[in-house]
Amino acid sequence: MNKGLLVVISAPSGGGKGTILKELFARNENMRFSVSATTRAPRPGEVDGVDYYFVTREQFEDMIREGKMLEYTQYLGNYYGTPRGPVEDWTAQGYDVVLEIEVQGGSQIKAKVPECVSVFILPPSMQVLSKRLHGRGTEDEETVQKRLKKAIQEIPHAKDYDYIVFNDRLEDAVEDVQAILRAEKLKYEKNIESVERVLNDAETV
Amino acid sequence: MNKGLLVVISAPSGGGKGTILKELFARNENMRFSVSATTRAPRPGEVDGVDYYFVTREQFEDMIREGKMLEYTQYLGNYYGTPRGPVEDWTAQGYDVVLEIEVQGGSQIKAKVPECVSVFILPPSMQVLSKRLHGRGTEDEETVQKRLKKAIQEIPHAKDYDYIVFNDRLEDAVEDVQAILRAEKLKYEKNIESVERVLNDAETV
Repeated sequence: MNKGLLVVISAPSGGGKGTILKELFARNENMRFSVSATTRAPRPGEVDGVDYYFVTREQFEDMIREGKMLEYTQYLGNYYGTPRGPVEDWTAQGYDVVLEIEVQGGSQIKAKVPECVSVFILPPSMQVLSKRLHGRGTEDEETVQKRLKKAIQEIPHAKDYDYIVFNDRLEDAVEDVQAILRAEKLKYEKNIESVERVLNDAETV
Repeated sequence: MNKGLLVVISAPSGGGKGTILKELFARNENMRFSVSATTRAPRPGEVDGVDYYFVTREQFEDMIREGKMLEYTQYLGNYYGTPRGPVEDWTAQGYDVVLEIEVQGGSQIKAKVPECVSVFILPPSMQVLSKRLHGRGTEDEETVQKRLKKAIQEIPHAKDYDYIVFNDRLEDAVEDVQAILRAEKLKYEKNIESVERVLNDAETV
């Protein structure tokens, strides 16, 4: 069995990453979601092990020291990171593991985990993004403007990702990611053993 | 409009490349086939400009000197090569151009044309390949054995290709190549202008 992929997905605020991920998980049985660890306090409704692994500062720093964090960052005084264990276990079992990561973290993860496949999801235009953010109707104009400004700062980080998916029509965007996963598994490096198997059984022909 | 891809496809003898290519062209309107130039004489039934561009040795060497050959090789005293013109015109027009190339040539083309996408098609096993070659019923046992030996020599060149497609079920193999083409077009380097377009129109929001 081939090892699964480690897939990093990032999007600027309002990019529609959540909807795409939901569709991907609905379509791929062999996909697992990497739950991050954090030292920040759980918010109402957040469940330990589902939304985050909530740990103490001491526990987090122990994990760093012991090499148990694939990557981590500090944000507003709290640690956020990806525990190495589940990612390695699952990919070894053939599952594709998805890391949903902030643009800042995502643009660094390629350096830390070179074998990962990184995907940056973009709105087709800022007009569409603006329309989507306003359409939510849950945020006031000031918040929408803040998100738009943040998106403009985040989009140039696209250059640090392997693939760009434009989230225009949801179905197309999901199929784009599916194609990326399928193609990545066809890369030569992922098939060295299979090629050797064909060669080795040549002797039995 | 984005530039088309230059796609190199190779397969060991009997790998089923022809059937896969036929399906690909049936499904992709924006695909063009690169016709090679050669100095060898046309065989009965071969049409100039369809099977090959048949040129003189002098013409071929002029094209080499003038940088009009993307790649070329000599085989049994004749030149074979890929004229640069059609490939560049078509990819500029957004067409994906397919180069069907011998394993020997294909394993070198990546060095000569780094931006190409190279795909190596493999039988799922030597048993299947042997069965397919025998199944043709058009070749005697000696020829089949020669082809099998050649395949065994060619398969290690898989390492020089970007992607490996196992031709087990035709439909899966065709979908594999389709996924590769789709994913390659999503690579960041192919989308720099589109990303910049989103950023530039930010000012108009």
